[in-house]
Amino acid sequence: MIMNTLATIFNHKSIRKFKNLPVEDEILNNILHAAMRAPSTGNMQLYNIIVTRDIENKRAILPFHFNQKMILDAPVVLTFNADFNRFNLWCEQRNAKPCYDNFLSFITAAIDTVIAAQNAVLAAESQGLGSCYLGTTIYMAEELIKFFELPKGIIPIATLAIGYPDEEPELVDRLPIKGNVHFEKYSNYSKSEIDEIYSYKENLESSKKLIEENKTENLAQIFTEKRYTRESNLLYSNKLLNILKSQGFMNNF
Amino acid sequence: MIMNTLATIFNHKSIRKFKNLPVEDEILNNILHAAMRAPSTGNMQLYNIIVTRDIENKRAILPFHFNQKMILDAPVVLTFNADFNRFNLWCEQRNAKPCYDNFLSFITAAIDTVIAAQNAVLAAESQGLGSCYLGTTIYMAEELIKFFELPKGIIPIATLAIGYPDEEPELVDRLPIKGNVHFEKYSNYSKSEIDEIYSYKENLESSKKLIEENKTENLAQIFTEKRYTRESNLLYSNKLLNILKSQGFMNNF
Repeated sequence: MIMNTLATIFNHKSIRKFKNLPVEDEILNNILHAAMRAPSTGNMQLYNIIVTRDIENKRAILPFHFNQKMILDAPVVLTFNADFNRFNLWCEQRNAKPCYDNFLSFITAAIDTVIAAQNAVLAAESQGLGSCYLGTTIYMAEELIKFFELPKGIIPIATLAIGYPDEEPELVDRLPIKGNVHFEKYSNYSKSEIDEIYSYKENLESSKKLIEENKTENLAQIFTEKRYTRESNLLYSNKLLNILKSQGFMNNF
Repeated sequence: MIMNTLATIFNHKSIRKFKNLPVEDEILNNILHAAMRAPSTGNMQLYNIIVTRDIENKRAILPFHFNQKMILDAPVVLTFNADFNRFNLWCEQRNAKPCYDNFLSFITAAIDTVIAAQNAVLAAESQGLGSCYLGTTIYMAEELIKFFELPKGIIPIATLAIGYPDEEPELVDRLPIKGNVHFEKYSNYSKSEIDEIYSYKENLESSKKLIEENKTENLAQIFTEKRYTRESNLLYSNKLLNILKSQGFMNNF
């Protein structure tokens, strides 16, 4: 199957249910090489990708992903990690003193990592597979580091569940272009512009159903009170900053 | 022109020289919509894209990108910013208390932002355009915030110079797969494995030329002593952390 790039991108849907079918080695190799063809800072390729296919390992990381069943069902789980370890080892072996134990270096590597991950998503989709990002990776970086035996200089950033789709969801809504795009300068939003930008999303049947299920007044409260709450954000902010420190990215201040 | 997704990805080259030709509105719209079709955390789309085409504005941001001439030559410059401002405004207007003034929320939005940016890269390339990421964005986030008039809750993450290529560079080298990919667990590298992984890169004619030009002993020292030095990393780490604070992402500790 050959899919053109814009069609792949415009037809993206996150897939959370997978057929009980393995991903062929050739197809997985294409995905991994696609990730590695991604541009990176100074061509340093400051990431690694851990391939999880073993069911025991999937069971082990399942709780770190809040028991989302797609971890077990997906034949392939890819964990993308910001990685200065390999680069540092190389520098040390070449009488070059690495100086990447700081916050800027972490962000640099994290950006490289996400660019590679999105290449993997599109390479998977263009070959008939589906995928879903798991945001839990940055919440549970500490646990994933222990499990994958990640040395200093490495932080988990994103996880993809990948496999043949066993569902055909509709395309999900997006904001109108003025919700995301600005020309020349940022133009901040008036109250009526915010109403206009969110009106389509708020009036979807799926949103109304969610509000009913969550027993909130409106859609915004589902985000602030149920999904991404102050308590969990503060908990995981602290956890993430601590793991940045212990993995060696907050030195030299 | 229709390019299949894997071909687009495998043929990626960063383009730094552009023809003096505008990017047609339809093509730019495809790029912007491609970015907006990217998956994002909870479909919150926590980013914005600022389109710079005005030559005066390009001249103004040129020094923030260390005077890299491609900023002037590219007909379109896209700045991708992690953005909780719009989402916060919506929440406040809906009697929902936003709680996204913390480090986790910044990283969440930054990940959304980079995923969108990479969709834009591939959408551009599949339409015959070339692009290059500018890593200077996170160094000069403070200056870009002032220039683009970005409210609290917004941090510049990545910039793309986009236009019709006026150069045809070769594909750039990548590490062998064992430099980036691990199966089931991370397997740290022995000295001989590091030698093996970097051998191809170190023996390229282009690397030898770089070493001569930079008057270093080897390639690794170009990175540590010339390109990404301790002094600049510490300077820009501090700057970035300070701007995270002043843009409201380091509260509640």
